[in-house]
Amino acid sequence: MKKYCEMNSAELCAAYSDLKKQYEDIKKLGMSLDISRGKPCTEQLNLSDGMLTCVSSAEDCRTEKGFDCRNYGLLDGVPEVKKLFSELLNIPTEYIFAAGSSSLNLMYDTLSRAMLYGVVGSERPWCREEKVKFICPVPGYDRHFKVTESLGFEMICVDMTSSGPDMDAVEELVKDPSVKGIWCNPKYSNPDGITYSDETVRRLAKMNTAAPDFRIMWDNAYAIHDLYDEGDELLDIFKACADAGNQDRVFYFASTSKITYPGAGVAILAASESNLKQIKAIMGIQTINFDKINQLRHVKFFGSAEAVREHMKKHAEIIAPKFAMVNSILTQELGELGIAHWTEPRGGYFVSFFSEEGCAKRIYSLAKEAGVTMTGVGATYPLGEDPHDSNIRIAPTYPSVSDLEKAMKTFTVCVKMATCEKYMKK
Amino acid sequence: MKKYCEMNSAELCAAYSDLKKQYEDIKKLGMSLDISRGKPCTEQLNLSDGMLTCVSSAEDCRTEKGFDCRNYGLLDGVPEVKKLFSELLNIPTEYIFAAGSSSLNLMYDTLSRAMLYGVVGSERPWCREEKVKFICPVPGYDRHFKVTESLGFEMICVDMTSSGPDMDAVEELVKDPSVKGIWCNPKYSNPDGITYSDETVRRLAKMNTAAPDFRIMWDNAYAIHDLYDEGDELLDIFKACADAGNQDRVFYFASTSKITYPGAGVAILAASESNLKQIKAIMGIQTINFDKINQLRHVKFFGSAEAVREHMKKHAEIIAPKFAMVNSILTQELGELGIAHWTEPRGGYFVSFFSEEGCAKRIYSLAKEAGVTMTGVGATYPLGEDPHDSNIRIAPTYPSVSDLEKAMKTFTVCVKMATCEKYMKK
Repeated sequence: MKKYCEMNSAELCAAYSDLKKQYEDIKKLGMSLDISRGKPCTEQLNLSDGMLTCVSSAEDCRTEKGFDCRNYGLLDGVPEVKKLFSELLNIPTEYIFAAGSSSLNLMYDTLSRAMLYGVVGSERPWCREEKVKFICPVPGYDRHFKVTESLGFEMICVDMTSSGPDMDAVEELVKDPSVKGIWCNPKYSNPDGITYSDETVRRLAKMNTAAPDFRIMWDNAYAIHDLYDEGDELLDIFKACADAGNQDRVFYFASTSKITYPGAGVAILAASESNLKQIKAIMGIQTINFDKINQLRHVKFFGSAEAVREHMKKHAEIIAPKFAMVNSILTQELGELGIAHWTEPRGGYFVSFFSEEGCAKRIYSLAKEAGVTMTGVGATYPLGEDPHDSNIRIAPTYPSVSDLEKAMKTFTVCVKMATCEKYMKK
Repeated sequence: MKKYCEMNSAELCAAYSDLKKQYEDIKKLGMSLDISRGKPCTEQLNLSDGMLTCVSSAEDCRTEKGFDCRNYGLLDGVPEVKKLFSELLNIPTEYIFAAGSSSLNLMYDTLSRAMLYGVVGSERPWCREEKVKFICPVPGYDRHFKVTESLGFEMICVDMTSSGPDMDAVEELVKDPSVKGIWCNPKYSNPDGITYSDETVRRLAKMNTAAPDFRIMWDNAYAIHDLYDEGDELLDIFKACADAGNQDRVFYFASTSKITYPGAGVAILAASESNLKQIKAIMGIQTINFDKINQLRHVKFFGSAEAVREHMKKHAEIIAPKFAMVNSILTQELGELGIAHWTEPRGGYFVSFFSEEGCAKRIYSLAKEAGVTMTGVGATYPLGEDPHDSNIRIAPTYPSVSDLEKAMKTFTVCVKMATCEKYMKK
């Protein structure tokens, strides 16, 4: 097939007229499909319904040591749930603070605490600094960027490479003492599905930062969220930091939002002992305890880390065909046109799609008009501004396979139209 | 019986020697009792065990409108739980934000937000103010004071009267624009069990504050926690503020910690629409949602506000005899000595005990040595400093009636000893 960039004006007009007809036919279907957010589908949620009944009596509410979780206490979580996360993520139990359902909440609170109190090694609370800058690998997770935007940090973009953030750029930026940290989503990154290489993790751990209180926000949201039997391997950030003498550099986050229920999971924060000592002292003022019965539900429902891993295979069985469908339609419809490229992640929740420069917003509008809601263009960049107007995040998990097929076919028509329009203007 | 203040030196010595013998006998029992914290007892927790099974299927996880609470969404809570709190507390549903298990967490976050962003009407974030002062009615709740201490506020004590905080003093203090708020625990206050009079509520609502962003932290922790059929009545603060044209003045907090489970309840924040608009915008950055399934458990377990009120009567049946026991032993052992006074609350979780000036710390130490842990002396004052060294908070709910009897008898011996010692030194 001839590429748009090789067509003359008349050929472009003919191609566009054909696309326009397809598009009008699609619009007549009156679809209303949403592939904007990384939400598990109903079948995935059903996998965890045993959680609703596994704690059903007062006796079930006791920890192994007999602590009654219905009552006050255990600020940092039920020991058994900390042990479960420890085994699952290979983190020392004593590094773990188990909380409520949202890891985003723990991340926001962590940076809010940094603002109000500073962190271990800070000379003053960050709100007393003239300026706080934060490194944002792009494309990235919109909710990360919203947190640092909300707290008034200046966000500095660094491009993602196939092995993680561009570390040459990161190492250069951290020479500035006002650069206080970096957002990392190190395994099956949102949206690119990239897992940081061992070298990237080691460089993050050992780089010299001008700020003595520089922090890595290590959001390991997809730690065990493999799509295939062979998952990516991520180097142990705590060990890498300890080896480099920077054991206080990491705040580590994870949750069961995409393991059990997004609406009722358990989130953890993990950090070195001196970090955790400071955090617990402040958390002990902020609250008395998080929901411990729900923590126990997770412990009793799974029983072991091995059982969680088996459970994740059932998730993969449900969602891997959706990722395959996305790739197959993109390849079939756009593969030979050379007007886009996209990721083929081995885990996580997203496919990252890159159109030709200057086309993404138009693609979004066309899809929206045809009844398909994509993630807002720019959402994967700080302040919602994609300098290339190119990246679109595709979230295939929530819709059914047949709805996804319709949505993706519509999407590819929109991609072709927007690209065609671009060349027609030239 | 002769009073210590009327005894001569020899009489005091004889009395003390007798007390000392009683004390040594008690110590030999090797007791280990704790009446320091307002924790529900096991029988109280058992009342809510129906919560553990009332949501047991995927179908149970749906709201009336069919929203699947297992998934992401509904930042401000399940509509049905907001309706339940609305009926129970007589607050407009649209004022309510239903969250996780801890109202303390909501209070901390509210002031932390004020620090980082300011509130509606603020000229700047409170962390940019030279000084933030907060009014603390005393004695009060230690965890309130810890929050404002932690955030670096200057705390100004105002005495509690039998109708609430000394409003003459409060009205004088709010003429200072750096006075940004006041802690209130308006019904069955911690520790005094005082319910604010209508006049106090009206004066709080209508007083002229120099700070345009003055806030009342209205912690209605014991809103429906009556010990007897006839409960105290508290005036509607939202209505009083609206009548005075100060509808944005109140942040209202409540929770089910002492209705269902302290370890797995639901907490709410309520505020005017413009306050809540600002709060939701920031909360939407802080998190995606709180545990909605646990909110639904509360809705399904109770079914109606009326059922919650019936449930509270069962709590009262369990704990009212404990309050009666405390009062009876205090009256019997100390009533004629004129060396102490204490409250006889009609609800809430505490009895507030006042020894003669300068005796409380000694009473605490003596009790501790005899195996009875009281709330730390000074805890009911900011920075842990009771200027009179007199107030001791008694928390009767957690121990059994027989343990409570032992603890209170021990306590009264310690009160007598400490007071006797005071007069012996004179």
